[in-house]
Amino acid sequence: MSNRKAILYIATSIDGYIAKPNDDLSFLSMVEKQGEDYGYHDFLASIDTVVMGRKTYDWIMAHVPEYVHADKETYIITRTERETAGNVNFYTGTLKGLIDALKSRTGQNIFIDGGAEIVNELLKDELIDEFIISVIPVLLGDGVRLFKDGRPEQRLQLVNAKSYETGLVQLHYERTNH
Amino acid sequence: MSNRKAILYIATSIDGYIAKPNDDLSFLSMVEKQGEDYGYHDFLASIDTVVMGRKTYDWIMAHVPEYVHADKETYIITRTERETAGNVNFYTGTLKGLIDALKSRTGQNIFIDGGAEIVNELLKDELIDEFIISVIPVLLGDGVRLFKDGRPEQRLQLVNAKSYETGLVQLHYERTNH
Repeated sequence: MSNRKAILYIATSIDGYIAKPNDDLSFLSMVEKQGEDYGYHDFLASIDTVVMGRKTYDWIMAHVPEYVHADKETYIITRTERETAGNVNFYTGTLKGLIDALKSRTGQNIFIDGGAEIVNELLKDELIDEFIISVIPVLLGDGVRLFKDGRPEQRLQLVNAKSYETGLVQLHYERTNH
Repeated sequence: MSNRKAILYIATSIDGYIAKPNDDLSFLSMVEKQGEDYGYHDFLASIDTVVMGRKTYDWIMAHVPEYVHADKETYIITRTERETAGNVNFYTGTLKGLIDALKSRTGQNIFIDGGAEIVNELLKDELIDEFIISVIPVLLGDGVRLFKDGRPEQRLQLVNAKSYETGLVQLHYERTNH
């Protein structure tokens, strides 16, 4: 095994939602600030592979003119086979199989880009090595939860907690070896 | 109105649970450390009134030899009348009515001590002025959620985020005037 890490990098409200109902992500604009990317550029430079769910991918493709991570190797988790498009692969196997396969090769880190279904599936097998969670200063009250019930307990280690002028707090945890 | 504040002071896991199933609070012991109380003593010195739900109260009374906040004026929110016991009052009216009444008197701040039902009821009317949320470095995977679905959206202002050697991060927010 190489030492590539699977890293969740995601934004959530204080009450744990990654979107309002109907995939409304407008709360993210609360923390938009000229010249402040909350470490996203540096994070992207540390990864060469992106894993995301099919629904998240379709949402992105419906909202942007071209796929944002075209320079990375991307795996879209889906039940329906689709033809590879550039660096974008559609993967119908198990998540554990994919992560194990990626980690058996050398490379940079792996960006777990959501959505919640993929995250919770990965957590069932404790397959996420690092968590970079940006907490936006709002209670959304309803929506899509980042964490769903019915996962195993997993202790994490705090790497860092950083607060920004906009009120965003970025929590960085890593997996412990138990 | 006086300037007394209703303050939620509570601990939660990274995935937003305040207890595991069956009211199991054992995860709190992960961050127990000699000489470190995460500001609890100072917080208690700033309040003279405690508001909590009846189930939380009964749980406490089943686990400790005597009521922990006997020196404070306490209001237990319940549907069933019970006789006042020392400083402990059983309150059958609305939470909004209670908070408004408490704020119309002078006094120190008001400790919102849970459980989740009381917190979510208060949030429906935006009655919590400050939030001091201690995030314990663990994913519990299941249990009693601090925040339930179906509340209004409420923007908060970050006061401070403080991390401790044990990996606990204390997030402190206050209500914004919109």
